[in-house]
Amino acid sequence: METIVAVDAMGSDRAPNPEIEGALLAVRHYPGVKVLLIGPEAQLKADLAGHPSAAGANIEIVNATQIIGMHEKPVQAVRGKKDSTMHVGLRLVRDKLAVGFVTAGNTGAAMATAKMVLGALPGVDRPALASVFPTSKGKPSMLIDVGANVDSKPQNLAQFAIMGEIYFRAIFGVPKPSVGLLSIGEEETKGNELTRQAFTLLKEIPFNFLGNVEGRDLYNGSVDVIVCDGFVGNVALKISEGLVDAVRFLLKESLNSTITSQVGALLSRKAFTNFGRRLDYSEYGGAPLLGIKGVAIVGHGASNANAIKNAIRVAKQYHESGVNPRIEQELTAARV
Amino acid sequence: METIVAVDAMGSDRAPNPEIEGALLAVRHYPGVKVLLIGPEAQLKADLAGHPSAAGANIEIVNATQIIGMHEKPVQAVRGKKDSTMHVGLRLVRDKLAVGFVTAGNTGAAMATAKMVLGALPGVDRPALASVFPTSKGKPSMLIDVGANVDSKPQNLAQFAIMGEIYFRAIFGVPKPSVGLLSIGEEETKGNELTRQAFTLLKEIPFNFLGNVEGRDLYNGSVDVIVCDGFVGNVALKISEGLVDAVRFLLKESLNSTITSQVGALLSRKAFTNFGRRLDYSEYGGAPLLGIKGVAIVGHGASNANAIKNAIRVAKQYHESGVNPRIEQELTAARV
Repeated sequence: METIVAVDAMGSDRAPNPEIEGALLAVRHYPGVKVLLIGPEAQLKADLAGHPSAAGANIEIVNATQIIGMHEKPVQAVRGKKDSTMHVGLRLVRDKLAVGFVTAGNTGAAMATAKMVLGALPGVDRPALASVFPTSKGKPSMLIDVGANVDSKPQNLAQFAIMGEIYFRAIFGVPKPSVGLLSIGEEETKGNELTRQAFTLLKEIPFNFLGNVEGRDLYNGSVDVIVCDGFVGNVALKISEGLVDAVRFLLKESLNSTITSQVGALLSRKAFTNFGRRLDYSEYGGAPLLGIKGVAIVGHGASNANAIKNAIRVAKQYHESGVNPRIEQELTAARV
Repeated sequence: METIVAVDAMGSDRAPNPEIEGALLAVRHYPGVKVLLIGPEAQLKADLAGHPSAAGANIEIVNATQIIGMHEKPVQAVRGKKDSTMHVGLRLVRDKLAVGFVTAGNTGAAMATAKMVLGALPGVDRPALASVFPTSKGKPSMLIDVGANVDSKPQNLAQFAIMGEIYFRAIFGVPKPSVGLLSIGEEETKGNELTRQAFTLLKEIPFNFLGNVEGRDLYNGSVDVIVCDGFVGNVALKISEGLVDAVRFLLKESLNSTITSQVGALLSRKAFTNFGRRLDYSEYGGAPLLGIKGVAIVGHGASNANAIKNAIRVAKQYHESGVNPRIEQELTAARV
């Protein structure tokens, strides 16, 4: 049986190249996967034909005449561009013509369009975006919400936690993922009004709740699923990206500053490539939007072909693992 | 004329060694500076005597019989330990026997004790802790508040901005520092309830307000003073520390993974030291607590002698530059 994944061909910063190459990699690596590439038909046909491995690949182009830009306002894009790649792709998911949708485009627009076209699962007040990233233990951790659900209520945070825990269990095969509440001190009383109220809800949920965790626990692998308000999550994500950029820059500058270290840099180039790959969250296939009726994975604007390939794999896994029926069931049971 | 700085000898993780060595470095490097080392007299006397450079150094030991631990609850420590190094040091500032106080101890306790012993400046609703850190441009940036002023009001953020801008001007000699509001999108309408209301206050203040900035702007040097609620600021700071630790760990692991890169690592060791120093915020001398009647600088628990030395310098500069009278004056004028 074929698993069909719809891919926004025009989302990433260098679209449609990473999308086309990622789709080609995916259909080659994952048997039974078919990709629907969504975008301007004529352009995509020409671009795809230029790839040597395109002949016979299990890829079909689906026409969409509009593109939502990285800096467009989500609300306007959702209402004004009904034939955008995002609308077309998500309608394919809604109509069961694809099991999931992958985009590396405007995150806000993807979330808004998914909510409008697919709708939220029963029991979900606010769908949330979960970011998966590497830790120094070599295992992934997940931060939810990073999708700009600002001014969250304690109940929203409890729902984010339940959805994130189910996803982590299903996708990473961890039987009892640990869950932490992002705060500014370990004791229950530390934090702000929101986290203190959320804490009392979270400790009643029958999962492996570790209590409050701190910012430094994001990257040390001590906790699997970290829950926070979307404002905090978005700031956390962007700070991390900015700091990694700064570290790369400073490191490169330091390495260039002496002849000896230039030789050193040359010799350790392989190690740096290795290091870069371990920091590269594209390995984990982008951020799933949890709590919607369907599967939507949002990749980084800077996604390369490998990131798109992995996001397609994650969309397939997400669908097959039955995350959404479980979210519906467990949220109803937890009554938050 | 002598400038006297009080230093908590028992604050840092490896106290009192970094404090003693930092004090010795400071009195040697900064002419006219005298250090009062606060802590258990007998122990400090013995430890100080063990240092070859201690003879004749302009250092005096002031006895304090209690120490506030890193994990003690601030409120209890403030009320229960009136003879702690922090109480004694801050009383010296209050009584004009020292121009400022430096500690690498429990941040929450330092803030609470400073607020109690010194009190807030007229016009300041909430004193705030400002963190100064390096950027990829080689210049410092400042984040305020990182001191756990949770559930801030828009007025608090406006006051943080004014205090931070004055400090940045005075200490770094930047005539018109730029000020940004930490949010999750550049447009005025982006953010949460708090940032949207703070934005309308900030744009009326006669300083160089850039509007909303994002998490990625923390480390790229594009803005001097970045304002946020203390919950967000604390998370930002801890995430940064955690990520730098993770990067160091991954880098070391990657470099050890091949023989060639081991040789490379050896050759580029100097460059790494250099890199580490550029990331090392101890160069900027710790975090000033702004808005109190006096000068208090809080260093990192992992402070080394160099960090203590720099914090002593910053305390002196802070006092001499007249930051506090300006804060009082400008906050009264701005009426926020």
